[in-house]
Amino acid sequence: MNNDIRKLLEGVSDGSVSIEDALLVLKKKPFEDLGYAKVDLHRQVRQGVAEVIYGAGKTPEQILGIVKGMKENGQETILITRLAEETAEIIRKEYDLTYQKEARCGIIGELPKADGIGKIVVATGGTSDIPVAEEAAVTAEALGNEVVRIYDVGVAGLHRLLSHLDELMEASVVIAIAGMEGALASVIGGLVDCPVIAVPTSVGYGAAFDGLSALLSMMNSCSSGVSVVNIDNGFGAGYLAGMINHMNEKKGE
Amino acid sequence: MNNDIRKLLEGVSDGSVSIEDALLVLKKKPFEDLGYAKVDLHRQVRQGVAEVIYGAGKTPEQILGIVKGMKENGQETILITRLAEETAEIIRKEYDLTYQKEARCGIIGELPKADGIGKIVVATGGTSDIPVAEEAAVTAEALGNEVVRIYDVGVAGLHRLLSHLDELMEASVVIAIAGMEGALASVIGGLVDCPVIAVPTSVGYGAAFDGLSALLSMMNSCSSGVSVVNIDNGFGAGYLAGMINHMNEKKGE
Amino acid sequence: MNNDIRKLLEGVSDGSVSIEDALLVLKKKPFEDLGYAKVDLHRQVRQGVAEVIYGAGKTPEQILGIVKGMKENGQETILITRLAEETAEIIRKEYDLTYQKEARCGIIGELPKADGIGKIVVATGGTSDIPVAEEAAVTAEALGNEVVRIYDVGVAGLHRLLSHLDELMEASVVIAIAGMEGALASVIGGLVDCPVIAVPTSVGYGAAFDGLSALLSMMNSCSSGVSVVNIDNGFGAGYLAGMINHMNEKKGE
Amino acid sequence: MNNDIRKLLEGVSDGSVSIEDALLVLKKKPFEDLGYAKVDLHRQVRQGVAEVIYGAGKTPEQILGIVKGMKENGQETILITRLAEETAEIIRKEYDLTYQKEARCGIIGELPKADGIGKIVVATGGTSDIPVAEEAAVTAEALGNEVVRIYDVGVAGLHRLLSHLDELMEASVVIAIAGMEGALASVIGGLVDCPVIAVPTSVGYGAAFDGLSALLSMMNSCSSGVSVVNIDNGFGAGYLAGMINHMNEKKGE
Amino acid sequence: MNNDIRKLLEGVSDGSVSIEDALLVLKKKPFEDLGYAKVDLHRQVRQGVAEVIYGAGKTPEQILGIVKGMKENGQETILITRLAEETAEIIRKEYDLTYQKEARCGIIGELPKADGIGKIVVATGGTSDIPVAEEAAVTAEALGNEVVRIYDVGVAGLHRLLSHLDELMEASVVIAIAGMEGALASVIGGLVDCPVIAVPTSVGYGAAFDGLSALLSMMNSCSSGVSVVNIDNGFGAGYLAGMINHMNEKKGE
Amino acid sequence: MNNDIRKLLEGVSDGSVSIEDALLVLKKKPFEDLGYAKVDLHRQVRQGVAEVIYGAGKTPEQILGIVKGMKENGQETILITRLAEETAEIIRKEYDLTYQKEARCGIIGELPKADGIGKIVVATGGTSDIPVAEEAAVTAEALGNEVVRIYDVGVAGLHRLLSHLDELMEASVVIAIAGMEGALASVIGGLVDCPVIAVPTSVGYGAAFDGLSALLSMMNSCSSGVSVVNIDNGFGAGYLAGMINHMNEKKGE
Amino acid sequence: MNNDIRKLLEGVSDGSVSIEDALLVLKKKPFEDLGYAKVDLHRQVRQGVAEVIYGAGKTPEQILGIVKGMKENGQETILITRLAEETAEIIRKEYDLTYQKEARCGIIGELPKADGIGKIVVATGGTSDIPVAEEAAVTAEALGNEVVRIYDVGVAGLHRLLSHLDELMEASVVIAIAGMEGALASVIGGLVDCPVIAVPTSVGYGAAFDGLSALLSMMNSCSSGVSVVNIDNGFGAGYLAGMINHMNEKKGE
Amino acid sequence: MNNDIRKLLEGVSDGSVSIEDALLVLKKKPFEDLGYAKVDLHRQVRQGVAEVIYGAGKTPEQILGIVKGMKENGQETILITRLAEETAEIIRKEYDLTYQKEARCGIIGELPKADGIGKIVVATGGTSDIPVAEEAAVTAEALGNEVVRIYDVGVAGLHRLLSHLDELMEASVVIAIAGMEGALASVIGGLVDCPVIAVPTSVGYGAAFDGLSALLSMMNSCSSGVSVVNIDNGFGAGYLAGMINHMNEKKGE
Repeated sequence: MNNDIRKLLEGVSDGSVSIEDALLVLKKKPFEDLGYAKVDLHRQVRQGVAEVIYGAGKTPEQILGIVKGMKENGQETILITRLAEETAEIIRKEYDLTYQKEARCGIIGELPKADGIGKIVVATGGTSDIPVAEEAAVTAEALGNEVVRIYDVGVAGLHRLLSHLDELMEASVVIAIAGMEGALASVIGGLVDCPVIAVPTSVGYGAAFDGLSALLSMMNSCSSGVSVVNIDNGFGAGYLAGMINHMNEKKGE
Repeated sequence: MNNDIRKLLEGVSDGSVSIEDALLVLKKKPFEDLGYAKVDLHRQVRQGVAEVIYGAGKTPEQILGIVKGMKENGQETILITRLAEETAEIIRKEYDLTYQKEARCGIIGELPKADGIGKIVVATGGTSDIPVAEEAAVTAEALGNEVVRIYDVGVAGLHRLLSHLDELMEASVVIAIAGMEGALASVIGGLVDCPVIAVPTSVGYGAAFDGLSALLSMMNSCSSGVSVVNIDNGFGAGYLAGMINHMNEKKGE
Repeated sequence: MNNDIRKLLEGVSDGSVSIEDALLVLKKKPFEDLGYAKVDLHRQVRQGVAEVIYGAGKTPEQILGIVKGMKENGQETILITRLAEETAEIIRKEYDLTYQKEARCGIIGELPKADGIGKIVVATGGTSDIPVAEEAAVTAEALGNEVVRIYDVGVAGLHRLLSHLDELMEASVVIAIAGMEGALASVIGGLVDCPVIAVPTSVGYGAAFDGLSALLSMMNSCSSGVSVVNIDNGFGAGYLAGMINHMNEKKGE
Repeated sequence: MNNDIRKLLEGVSDGSVSIEDALLVLKKKPFEDLGYAKVDLHRQVRQGVAEVIYGAGKTPEQILGIVKGMKENGQETILITRLAEETAEIIRKEYDLTYQKEARCGIIGELPKADGIGKIVVATGGTSDIPVAEEAAVTAEALGNEVVRIYDVGVAGLHRLLSHLDELMEASVVIAIAGMEGALASVIGGLVDCPVIAVPTSVGYGAAFDGLSALLSMMNSCSSGVSVVNIDNGFGAGYLAGMINHMNEKKGE
Repeated sequence: MNNDIRKLLEGVSDGSVSIEDALLVLKKKPFEDLGYAKVDLHRQVRQGVAEVIYGAGKTPEQILGIVKGMKENGQETILITRLAEETAEIIRKEYDLTYQKEARCGIIGELPKADGIGKIVVATGGTSDIPVAEEAAVTAEALGNEVVRIYDVGVAGLHRLLSHLDELMEASVVIAIAGMEGALASVIGGLVDCPVIAVPTSVGYGAAFDGLSALLSMMNSCSSGVSVVNIDNGFGAGYLAGMINHMNEKKGE
Repeated sequence: MNNDIRKLLEGVSDGSVSIEDALLVLKKKPFEDLGYAKVDLHRQVRQGVAEVIYGAGKTPEQILGIVKGMKENGQETILITRLAEETAEIIRKEYDLTYQKEARCGIIGELPKADGIGKIVVATGGTSDIPVAEEAAVTAEALGNEVVRIYDVGVAGLHRLLSHLDELMEASVVIAIAGMEGALASVIGGLVDCPVIAVPTSVGYGAAFDGLSALLSMMNSCSSGVSVVNIDNGFGAGYLAGMINHMNEKKGE
Repeated sequence: MNNDIRKLLEGVSDGSVSIEDALLVLKKKPFEDLGYAKVDLHRQVRQGVAEVIYGAGKTPEQILGIVKGMKENGQETILITRLAEETAEIIRKEYDLTYQKEARCGIIGELPKADGIGKIVVATGGTSDIPVAEEAAVTAEALGNEVVRIYDVGVAGLHRLLSHLDELMEASVVIAIAGMEGALASVIGGLVDCPVIAVPTSVGYGAAFDGLSALLSMMNSCSSGVSVVNIDNGFGAGYLAGMINHMNEKKGE
Repeated sequence: MNNDIRKLLEGVSDGSVSIEDALLVLKKKPFEDLGYAKVDLHRQVRQGVAEVIYGAGKTPEQILGIVKGMKENGQETILITRLAEETAEIIRKEYDLTYQKEARCGIIGELPKADGIGKIVVATGGTSDIPVAEEAAVTAEALGNEVVRIYDVGVAGLHRLLSHLDELMEASVVIAIAGMEGALASVIGGLVDCPVIAVPTSVGYGAAFDGLSALLSMMNSCSSGVSVVNIDNGFGAGYLAGMINHMNEKKGE
């Protein structure tokens, strides 16, 4: 995934980038201080997430500042999550941003082409879980994955889920998103033989306790291959799914 | 009622009743008119629970005493739940008791013949839930119901559950028993169109938190027709299922 | 309850509906895709709830779309729960909708006549529990049940509850709704010999913890025949009560 | 209640005790150090609880030491709570101790005669609550109160409770002890017009959560006049009830 | 406390009230139905709380209706708790109501003269606890008690509490009100030899968890004579304190 | 499908099929079309978990029976988790079982050779976490993975963790196992660019609350690529890690 | 003390003091001997907190009143925490107040010069924790300490924290502020050899549960030298850190 | 640093270093520059904790091995906490170990002389808290501090605490240890002007919930200068207190 640095090194290797220029780029990377928050560009080397900005709690000015820093470092595609529509409007004045309303995400630049092992299925129990699902789906797409959306297939209507059995069985990773009793993860986990990332949502009322019920339920899944991320953490699930879907790139494969 | 109070007031008026005594009588008035003594007898006829003894925390002597009292009142069949095997041995010396080890239940006398609306299905997620299931099943049988047992059909292996679709769809009531994530109740609730009684069990470890996870999960079931009883309360589920399965007997039908 | 399909089959049986027409209706049923949420009409076969729309979190347009789909499939009576008054106004412009303010429910079409085994009693501990109770009552009525309302009969004033002893004892199902300490379910459970569906409410303050106290209390009921649904889940209780009150229809009885 | 000090002062007043002797007694009182735990005899002046020893976690030697210190200070009656039977045996070798097995309490010396305002009713929901009830009852008796025991009158069988309506209505204080759903306190609170002290117990299983359910339930009682002490705290309830039942002694009345 | 009924009986006893008139009053009492909530006037006989209206969640019209019913029954003094200032304005147009802003209470009619055993001390840990304290104080005053207010004497500044030692020691009942760590109840409980009613408040932040921390802390008080009511339940504490402070009226004393 | 339904309707039409029977057939329709019997076989091939036996709660006889069945089906390698040493002794009499004491696992047959994408690192915060870690490691090995163990590298001594930076950075998957504050997962998640599976353990005391603290902590990890399995669930983590480490085998690669 | 009591006893003896009065005096004895009025003054000198006003829940008038009182007593520097900006405006009209927006603190008068043992480092995991951090930093500065701010150094990017290793190692006290998983305190605690004060914040979502997760995590820190204050309690941490940083002033140093 | 990277780039340029290898080197860069190997040594000098062995969960052999290693490194005094008496016996055969039974601690070698700023007061609410207190006290002594023990001074008997006012006021650090309601920390925090370390204990029953109540209570302390360590963590409190009591040694003082 460390495409930027890898490209730089390839440039050094084939002579198209001078050592001095490469040194300059690498020197600038680690700790570019933007005042309010150190944008950690070196982190890209390690995790490849430099192109994602977590928008929650940031002012439009702060986000613009971070985008500018990234752009100056040559970052082409930038994903901004938890982005309010009004803030998106402001950013759009300076950058070519596509806003995905339901996912509350903005994307600057072109989406990369999907080059993962297979397809990532994003499934939800109900329609209220869709915003979390879209955050997961858009994140995965922004990281170069093909995503199949299967929404509103909660276990209370099993035939709806089972009518998508083919897509589920062909998935390389499944993200199972559900509030309420969170049973979707267990049921899918028992059907497929690929990793299942469970995302509890805060959807529900009463004994749902803001996602606690779904979280506990998913932690207790008796299906093998299931793991859980934080309540409503669509980004985390999409990111991890994308990472697993690119495992073949590890170690020169 | 007016007459009683009038007499009382006359007593106050002529000094034969003290104000304090009159106050006390007036206090008790609302309940005296209820004939609550009558309630007790009525209850015995109605609920049919006189023949069940909750064995937990009772000494063999205490249980024997209750059995003796029941027998003298003409009770033919008696179900004793949460009965330790050693205690069963002691009771067996005096009464013809059949002990069901897994259910930890003893039955004195003949089981009634099944005369309910239909069959009660008792389903469990795993094999560890079977003791709770057997308590439910034996209770329902002792109350005159035919019981179909479908064990170890947890949602992590959906095909196991679906291979019993016929029995589930023909059931008049289903008791869904599961620990861990407790998803069984929701899945069954979505498949059948009869009442589903969910029993969370304390089976599991870690985030199962002694049945809390399953309980919350079941409370949040998005399937209609599902209600929940206490953790490990097999008796309560069996009793309620039997009651529902005899609804046709209500109102002279 | 599967009246629609049953009627269709009866039509086929008596020749008033051609096989081709029946096939067409059945084909359309399972997965009519309305874009945002698959209205699962096939589900009606299994659960008979197709005529209920859960209004929470749906836009007026979405609800209108679902209503339209149902109407085109011949659904006469439609119950919409958790329906905001403003949304009801919008729907009323196109359909003949009766809005029940306290229950926050709308009904399109005629209420079915009550044809259950007996009467369903809906009882509340306080006046603040009435919205949940009305949701339960209207749901049960919409499903063809006669409902008796007994409100504000909390256990702190036992004589109020006991003055309704006759109605309670004649009930075929009781829905006991209470916040705070939730004791109503246990007390009623000990008085009657029919199923009691307990609904904890989020009414209360302090240690009521948004219904958790009532929920735990009701789970622990020592009365037999009591089961519990989610906090504030009036619909679920009304639906289940209606199902139990029609148990005589099971298996051709 | 400050009988010892009052007697001392009366002795000073009538000349039977010299000022020097009185001074010596008072000097010794406040902080008599027994090495492991300061027995706070001065506390008797303030709270009148000096004659109670909380036996839990104390060795027989420690208890004997405290008893000895109390006896040397002229204490006639001593109540030891949470006292293991074996420890009672050891103490009995040196002091005339009566052991109450169910209450797990030992009493040295004569019980005082009952001189309170009225009777204290101790009521329990079930038979398993009796040990806590007996601790409360014995404590109240040891503090000079007449106690009426009404056990196993849980709300699931309301007629049992109502058959004791006379005793409840005549009580000056009621101690309501229950595990499970803890509804007993609310129901009694609604029946009587005297203070009700609620004691949740750890009796129950599953969602009883070691008394938490009963505690929350009792905290939420909608009946006026109800307050709550710690789970299983029979002593605390008995002590407080005794204090209230002697309110007439306040301010020279 | 049952002053109304007692007065009625006294009238009957001394001939100033005819038996017929008394009968008429008593007949009207039990179940006067106001439509939305049965005002339980008979309850006055049992608990003496008929003159208190819990204002939370009631419309001005509802409150006016209840007040009217009470007035027609001869009730002179009426306390309305949890009363919004705007609602108080509306009621004031028809009845002579005094509004106590901090306590959020309204009083119609004259306060009764204080005739209890002694004084009730209402103490708070901080200034933020004062609204709850005022609700307790006004309630106690409305029930005929003299109240001493000692505010902002939290345990973090012990000398402030100790400077009121005289008032505390002379109290017949103490109401200890505190949020945060709730230690006030234990400290006062160790200083005085009268009943202490602890009221946890929802004051605080972070680990105060809306009063849960104070509630648990107070439940665990090691001081004898302490009992606890619900979080923020000033009325309950004031009512119970008033009841205890009138214990001398029990049984003809 | 149309043909089946057409035939059914023809039967209804000509009277050879009763309406009730037709209704039942229509109910089961959505699932019959799935060929779910097929699912079962498929699963055995796919998930590779048929060779794992969860030993907890099974008698030696039960385990022996399962092993026998597997062996007869040609299974060469069998992993038994949560296996008591005594039970291992019994099995060893009939099969060639290697017992790994710390992991509480038994292996029958040869371990497969490691053929995954890369190495799986199993890291623990302390030495008390090692049993869970060994269960994870042995499981991964039994599924054909090379495992690197890095134990006792908790974040309180960061240098210990950092001295293994090479192994961590080369890992294809990391399993981070920790009790107490569970910070290990976040720290490792920030260092590596591969999936991290976090396993909270029940190690710790006091506010560790049997693993709840570590579980919540890990759920909140701000590092991307981290997901969580149940408390002490070493097997689940090892299984999932092995699955991810074989992602290259997906889709014919 | 003996003299006072002797005089009292003489009064009792000669009848000039009633027994009741003597009893009351003896009750208050243990506290009167303390001269607790003295305690208060002493406190002002010692704790140096007289100059801090906790602004939350206070009206501008109340704050102005307190400031006025302090100023009249010669207090030069006053710190007001949890101060709304509008309130600051009002105060600024009368006093020379500097408002620190992020810390929500106002300072009247000159900041004291830093005279502590060393520097206090205030570190945060993320940028959202900064308001709490600034409250801590400003408090420490107002109490005469030099503060080094290291913000946004959460453990998910360890190199950011490690790049400040020098400042951390030179600190005399570190305040570690973090929400989410709260791991910062443990990691810093393992790096430095000075006291670490951990402040959990309510930053985060889902399983962060308003700071509960961070709080539990920090309580479980395996690093020695770490202790915890309440969620979001920046003031408490700053105050304690300042106190520790002036330990050299103890005992005449 | 530039030189290293330049060399690396030159290698890439001339083909002697592969791009993959260069990527890995660049990944590890941020940590390699830290000289973290140095950190370890530094730590030993700094924290002084090398001489403490946490004995819980370690076999006698493991402890002996660690002791041997320390001794060979010249460590003279070694403190072993959570040490079972039998294990102490085994160690005593080889090393001169003093076992402190109540603290469950063993000390090998001479205790250092006390050289701190002042005295550390260890105070407990009850006698049951003493084991935790002794662990704290012995730890502090082993780290060169003078310790004053004030046990059984819980807030329910305030005069006991106040009789130690002198010792408290002279303390340089106070460790306040209490279970139940944990009020001791707040009360002491309000009396003294030095840091107070609060240790909740698991002492208590019922709503004490194994120390949770005391923990929450202490977290909410309104006294400034109070911070909290884990439940029953006597060692942690003793260690931190010792560190604070040696603050004068910081920065060459």
